[in-house]
Amino acid sequence: MIIQLEKNIKESDLERIKSECIKLGLKPTTVNTASSQYLVSVVKNEIDIRLIGSLSGVTDVHRVSDDYKLVSRKWKVGYTTIELNKNSRIGDGSFCLMAGPCSIESESQIRTVLKHLKENGISVMRGGVFKPRTSPYSFQGLGLEGLKLWHKLAADNGVSIISEVMAIDQIEKMYPHIDIYQVGARNAQNFPLLHELGKVDKPVLIKRGMSGTIDDLLHAAEYVFSSGNEKLILCERGIRTFERAYRNTLDLNAVPILKDKSHLPVVVDPSHGIGIRKHVPRMALAAVASGCDGLLLEIHPEPEKAFSDGQQTLNFEEASRLYADIKQLLKFFGVECEMVEGSSASGS
Amino acid sequence: MIIQLEKNIKESDLERIKSECIKLGLKPTTVNTASSQYLVSVVKNEIDIRLIGSLSGVTDVHRVSDDYKLVSRKWKVGYTTIELNKNSRIGDGSFCLMAGPCSIESESQIRTVLKHLKENGISVMRGGVFKPRTSPYSFQGLGLEGLKLWHKLAADNGVSIISEVMAIDQIEKMYPHIDIYQVGARNAQNFPLLHELGKVDKPVLIKRGMSGTIDDLLHAAEYVFSSGNEKLILCERGIRTFERAYRNTLDLNAVPILKDKSHLPVVVDPSHGIGIRKHVPRMALAAVASGCDGLLLEIHPEPEKAFSDGQQTLNFEEASRLYADIKQLLKFFGVECEMVEGSSASGS
Amino acid sequence: MIIQLEKNIKESDLERIKSECIKLGLKPTTVNTASSQYLVSVVKNEIDIRLIGSLSGVTDVHRVSDDYKLVSRKWKVGYTTIELNKNSRIGDGSFCLMAGPCSIESESQIRTVLKHLKENGISVMRGGVFKPRTSPYSFQGLGLEGLKLWHKLAADNGVSIISEVMAIDQIEKMYPHIDIYQVGARNAQNFPLLHELGKVDKPVLIKRGMSGTIDDLLHAAEYVFSSGNEKLILCERGIRTFERAYRNTLDLNAVPILKDKSHLPVVVDPSHGIGIRKHVPRMALAAVASGCDGLLLEIHPEPEKAFSDGQQTLNFEEASRLYADIKQLLKFFGVECEMVEGSSASGS
Amino acid sequence: MIIQLEKNIKESDLERIKSECIKLGLKPTTVNTASSQYLVSVVKNEIDIRLIGSLSGVTDVHRVSDDYKLVSRKWKVGYTTIELNKNSRIGDGSFCLMAGPCSIESESQIRTVLKHLKENGISVMRGGVFKPRTSPYSFQGLGLEGLKLWHKLAADNGVSIISEVMAIDQIEKMYPHIDIYQVGARNAQNFPLLHELGKVDKPVLIKRGMSGTIDDLLHAAEYVFSSGNEKLILCERGIRTFERAYRNTLDLNAVPILKDKSHLPVVVDPSHGIGIRKHVPRMALAAVASGCDGLLLEIHPEPEKAFSDGQQTLNFEEASRLYADIKQLLKFFGVECEMVEGSSASGS
Repeated sequence: MIIQLEKNIKESDLERIKSECIKLGLKPTTVNTASSQYLVSVVKNEIDIRLIGSLSGVTDVHRVSDDYKLVSRKWKVGYTTIELNKNSRIGDGSFCLMAGPCSIESESQIRTVLKHLKENGISVMRGGVFKPRTSPYSFQGLGLEGLKLWHKLAADNGVSIISEVMAIDQIEKMYPHIDIYQVGARNAQNFPLLHELGKVDKPVLIKRGMSGTIDDLLHAAEYVFSSGNEKLILCERGIRTFERAYRNTLDLNAVPILKDKSHLPVVVDPSHGIGIRKHVPRMALAAVASGCDGLLLEIHPEPEKAFSDGQQTLNFEEASRLYADIKQLLKFFGVECEMVEGSSASGS
Repeated sequence: MIIQLEKNIKESDLERIKSECIKLGLKPTTVNTASSQYLVSVVKNEIDIRLIGSLSGVTDVHRVSDDYKLVSRKWKVGYTTIELNKNSRIGDGSFCLMAGPCSIESESQIRTVLKHLKENGISVMRGGVFKPRTSPYSFQGLGLEGLKLWHKLAADNGVSIISEVMAIDQIEKMYPHIDIYQVGARNAQNFPLLHELGKVDKPVLIKRGMSGTIDDLLHAAEYVFSSGNEKLILCERGIRTFERAYRNTLDLNAVPILKDKSHLPVVVDPSHGIGIRKHVPRMALAAVASGCDGLLLEIHPEPEKAFSDGQQTLNFEEASRLYADIKQLLKFFGVECEMVEGSSASGS
Repeated sequence: MIIQLEKNIKESDLERIKSECIKLGLKPTTVNTASSQYLVSVVKNEIDIRLIGSLSGVTDVHRVSDDYKLVSRKWKVGYTTIELNKNSRIGDGSFCLMAGPCSIESESQIRTVLKHLKENGISVMRGGVFKPRTSPYSFQGLGLEGLKLWHKLAADNGVSIISEVMAIDQIEKMYPHIDIYQVGARNAQNFPLLHELGKVDKPVLIKRGMSGTIDDLLHAAEYVFSSGNEKLILCERGIRTFERAYRNTLDLNAVPILKDKSHLPVVVDPSHGIGIRKHVPRMALAAVASGCDGLLLEIHPEPEKAFSDGQQTLNFEEASRLYADIKQLLKFFGVECEMVEGSSASGS
Repeated sequence: MIIQLEKNIKESDLERIKSECIKLGLKPTTVNTASSQYLVSVVKNEIDIRLIGSLSGVTDVHRVSDDYKLVSRKWKVGYTTIELNKNSRIGDGSFCLMAGPCSIESESQIRTVLKHLKENGISVMRGGVFKPRTSPYSFQGLGLEGLKLWHKLAADNGVSIISEVMAIDQIEKMYPHIDIYQVGARNAQNFPLLHELGKVDKPVLIKRGMSGTIDDLLHAAEYVFSSGNEKLILCERGIRTFERAYRNTLDLNAVPILKDKSHLPVVVDPSHGIGIRKHVPRMALAAVASGCDGLLLEIHPEPEKAFSDGQQTLNFEEASRLYADIKQLLKFFGVECEMVEGSSASGS
């Protein structure tokens, strides 16, 4: 059950509502987000919600039969829109492209990518500075110093950045230098991290776990939302299966299902989703057709020399051709996109 | 290794080539299809292929490093085209839609579906008369009598039919009354059945197994091809994963991978692939965008009353809307399609 | 619902019972096995079973809430015992070992294995003559001629044989030369094959599918039982997962679950279950501890030279050590076993 | 490559060795554990290891072809033994039982469990105070206060405790009140957490991830070891598959494989591994037979009233019966166990 409270509810009203809940056998969790205040409770028995709905300070009461509550569309049918920067929103029906290298490697690499993004009218750049690597002996990323440099250069170009946060102590350190936090597949059930991300006022993109179900992903989002942050983006990036012909199995079923079950925006990462460079464009187009709100794409000036994930990363020429195709395809679907008009057109 | 032989090779030349192969340590399999004759052999050691290539009766010799041989694109870069009927081909770059009910149920059902297909310019009808049901107490299909009736009515309307064959003894019985044989997911590794289907001259569509890999699917096709039938269509229909939010996980990665590895046409079954009626259209569009050669779609005049699979079956109105969207999307990709021009247009 | 009928029920009584069933909205399936006669029906609505139970010719009526009926322990709490030969039974609480090569290769191989089995008091030999191979170019087995030779030699030694049947037409051909039919993992949902195997009076061992669930396996058994053959053995042989360190993932959870849900005997194939020779003995012992009724084990005089599966096959010395360990372990569990007393003892 | 260094190597020698490594194109990582000092490096090209082996301060140089290095048995063939308390070691060939509730709930619950453990001669108690729950609205554990109370009571009874750590900031807070840290399945790839656990001098048990491979698990251990902590225990706890008949699929193949690939002790958690109370004992025995070094078992005075995991938790009577069976089985395998002699005996 979700109880929506008045914006500036009186403390005494709030206490009254809580005590009524407790009388009814509920254990309400108080949730304060930037825009609203809620009481959320799992309801096990039948309850007459009018007993709560009629109390002073209550705006609305919603029954939500899903196990997750705040992220469900059962109470909020319209979709959540998140401002990413002055040029870019996500969740409002428009399309948002986020592109960049797997790893941030050097100032010159950053500058080259930013120039490419600007030319193509893309205003969100992805990149990793803290890298979750299977081996402790692999390149672990440039860390906070890399982030600072990158953020400065990006901000100078009006570009927002998204980067993975791997540990609670990084949240605060990254805060001045980040626009969108990303939670990686390996942290999709790192509940303390998700809980802490509920306390910041910047958007958080949550990737589905390696073998995470739709339900797991929505519960991960519920952790962040219930701690106070409703600027959430869900991301399908491929699941682990027994198939050995590709790195992961991109599960586009997830897109219409997530759009049906939740009011949060959904993006797809086709680069990790198939893991094979030459097939990324096709899967990007399939993802667009599946109805997602945006893409997370790995690009690099010289994929062959990338510190990580080169085998699934597009070069600028391949990327530009894909942008053009995506734009055309979005037109077909009647979807707006901030990207600059390009030249290429054929559907690969 | 694949040795292409002259169309009307002399028996003595053939024997000579075989004996040379054996001298080289090979165990050649003779393959006769409607259009060509080959010798196929797994090669374990390094061999000078000129020793074979220079023999009388040999047209060409190809090294194929894949475990499957004849279905590989390593020796046949161009795609295989299959005539389905006078209006419909598959594999030539055009798009082929096959639609119909899960089960053939009655004459009136057949007539209603045929009328709908004709109105929409669709010339291949799917339907089951031998149904592979998990429980022996479930409806097992109308059997051969149903097939005869259906085939007659379809032929009268210029429509070809595709239906599942489950056992070797059905191949011959079905032969006069079928246009395209379908091998279901549960028989994807039924090697004797695949072997026997190599002896007929009608097209065979092979569905990927419940947990079948790309490699398994291509080997299944190799079984049919190596027994003499090269009119093969590969079908992605969703794999079994741990996800419980949908019936199967449609794996669209399979489309570009199969088009890259094999010269055979690839179709997608979005109905089984997600198993939820309201999401089938989105996944159908995503499949088109992934680059497949056709779709296998479940439709029914009254899905609520269907004998099987009603929960994933579109009614005619939903289906017609989807055809229109597909046609528009194909135009975007520059792909031809035999479907009649419809009225609807918006992509979601 | 399962209606047990009197052994020599009068035709008129049977008709009466069927018509009562139909009046109640049921569609009863008649099942005749060697020992009993049943009517089986899926019941959708609440029914007063006394209306049937009181009819002449009815011995007993059981409600079975599982989707599978005859193989369920919900109506038959005691376990089914199957005579394999005069020395060997399965399902009566004793332990049955079946060992032999993956492929039957030659007369001398057969003789050597039989000698080894006799020395160790093992009276069931496994072996393949029809081999389901992923590639059509791999060794496909010695076929019927191999089976005839093998069966003769085995019978001369008082040993029963178990071998895979892959197609309906093989059932009759194999019949005079086989003691136990095996349905392989790839045919676990080959329903016509299962249906036909219900018509023979010899035991059938059914392997779980590559990605088959417990429910799938029990439904496969239901197909055979409902066609008239109740001499069924279930076999866990490892499932396909994303793990690449072994061939399959042996799922020993399946053993106590199957023993709980069904009255049929359960055997384990540790050779396919892990696929790595040196680890087979450990998994065999774990399988014994999990409570199975028997093992299916791959052994060969010279595994390095085996035509197939050599990498997971034990040689005679390794096998003998394992038998001794199994025997000791069975003693610990208080389980009888026909194997001859050996010498080795330590738990490897 | 692993370079073992002299215990009190001179700084100048260390620098010399490092610079030689760098000259050879290596990037050595310095690892200091309580007992040893190493340089570890991934080697891409062929190197003459004598160039390093002959340097002053080097004890030994090992090539390790696995991707993980320090946890591999390729350089350390003997098994690692870890002292858990004065009565209990793990990895020395003896058997270690760890039992306790899913969640620590109250003082009286703790006391009751401790009494039971003492009576059965078990000296390690498991329990959760920080609970990783899928839903933010579920019971999250008693936290640090619960841990303090529990640790005090356990220490008074000479019992060590093992409990899950979920976040870096908990490591230090838990330190005075914990004997063995546990990393849960959901944090199996939480690399920063693993890295920080390398800096403590208490044992760490690492559970395999929900869909983690053997390789993933060994890499997780490598993270901890390479940061300085070699007191590591690996734990198989079931993986996620498509099977719905049990909570997880216990993968006992993992036991012999891990014992073969790594020198670290391996324990099994049969409670999570099958998730069904009545089948836990069978799977515990199967785990013992698979060759593991210990078990992690969920027990509770009243499982029906447990705050979490009651459906897979044994009561004291069931547990005592299982201990007796385990002890008997260990005798069969010639394995020592600290557990007190009990009374029950029968193997099922």
